[in-house]
Amino acid sequence: MKLYGYFLSSAAFRVRIALNLKGLEYEYASVNLTKDQHRTEEFARVNPQQAVPTLVDGDRTLTQSLAIIEYLEERYPKPPLLPASVDARARVRSIAQLIACDIHPLNNRRVLVYLKKELGLHKQQRDDWYRHWVIEGLRPLEKSLSTSEQTGSFCHGETPTVADVCLVPQIFNAKRYEVDLGPYPNLLRIFANCMQLEAFDRAQPSKQPDAE
Amino acid sequence: MKLYGYFLSSAAFRVRIALNLKGLEYEYASVNLTKDQHRTEEFARVNPQQAVPTLVDGDRTLTQSLAIIEYLEERYPKPPLLPASVDARARVRSIAQLIACDIHPLNNRRVLVYLKKELGLHKQQRDDWYRHWVIEGLRPLEKSLSTSEQTGSFCHGETPTVADVCLVPQIFNAKRYEVDLGPYPNLLRIFANCMQLEAFDRAQPSKQPDAE
Repeated sequence: MKLYGYFLSSAAFRVRIALNLKGLEYEYASVNLTKDQHRTEEFARVNPQQAVPTLVDGDRTLTQSLAIIEYLEERYPKPPLLPASVDARARVRSIAQLIACDIHPLNNRRVLVYLKKELGLHKQQRDDWYRHWVIEGLRPLEKSLSTSEQTGSFCHGETPTVADVCLVPQIFNAKRYEVDLGPYPNLLRIFANCMQLEAFDRAQPSKQPDAE
Repeated sequence: MKLYGYFLSSAAFRVRIALNLKGLEYEYASVNLTKDQHRTEEFARVNPQQAVPTLVDGDRTLTQSLAIIEYLEERYPKPPLLPASVDARARVRSIAQLIACDIHPLNNRRVLVYLKKELGLHKQQRDDWYRHWVIEGLRPLEKSLSTSEQTGSFCHGETPTVADVCLVPQIFNAKRYEVDLGPYPNLLRIFANCMQLEAFDRAQPSKQPDAE
């Protein structure tokens, strides 16, 4: 398998964690977003959407991080990253999507670039924007995790799931932008538990070959 | 089942289509986002995330549109909204997520309100923002659908899937903001095919009880 990613991409980070948790070996191909390497014709031949992560598995080219992870779950089911029961799967996917649909899309690189270049926002305004959407998402997530009996050492029970796979890159990102994480003790507790695992630790941005 | 939604919410529109396609009856509870009804304590007791759509099925409360639809797929599998093969499922989920993660989160109501109230952007800037992200997403989607042999009358083959469930509300939204859809003939063709189906037609915003 070959993963096209970038060390700072949260979505690529999710796929790295999932591959590691499932014990799947992969070749890492760096696509430097700050150098617009995703906009090259060469990369357009790999993924016409010109976005990372892109996973090539045999003759399949897979895009969109959560679709890739669902694919891995179906193709390589052990260990599972989704619980067995339908209700629990819905809970885990809902947590994952709160992060992947409600927080991350507003704060990824292309958006921050637009705020700066097209709208001419200064740094304080961009930082306020960033923190606003992180807090809008993490606040209900903390509330939801802290009041559910299904929350355990991880977002759901005692083994990592897709929810944790999404949470950890989001917390890394929030730390990078110096968001005060004090109000989210459960998220920090789960984050710490995840980072004890080699699969999460090895996937972190600073440990990638293209880390700067 | 009870669906908390709002006639203009694209994410609620997705769930309405999915419920209709599966022939599931539901009670519709309107949460008027423009009147901040999602911010009431009453609704917080239903969904602490205070977002629509929220689906109550028996004693389960489900959130996040794609997690809800995956739940419906697992709990009420007929007719399926995902193809049978792992590869095809990945393709369909990727299309759905391109829309649900890369386009819609940037253009939903809370974001447009922030651009206006917090950043003081005037209408032209907000419209440019809207159209920019729609085009950034629809362009690669059109390219991808137009070059795949798996595209049929619908995004994937000859029956509607989760991809179409996401596409149709996005096209409605783009039309509302007067995005020029000329460059996307395949998307318009699929949109027209979907709208021939009663399940899509009946779910559209103007046909909801809370339509204004």
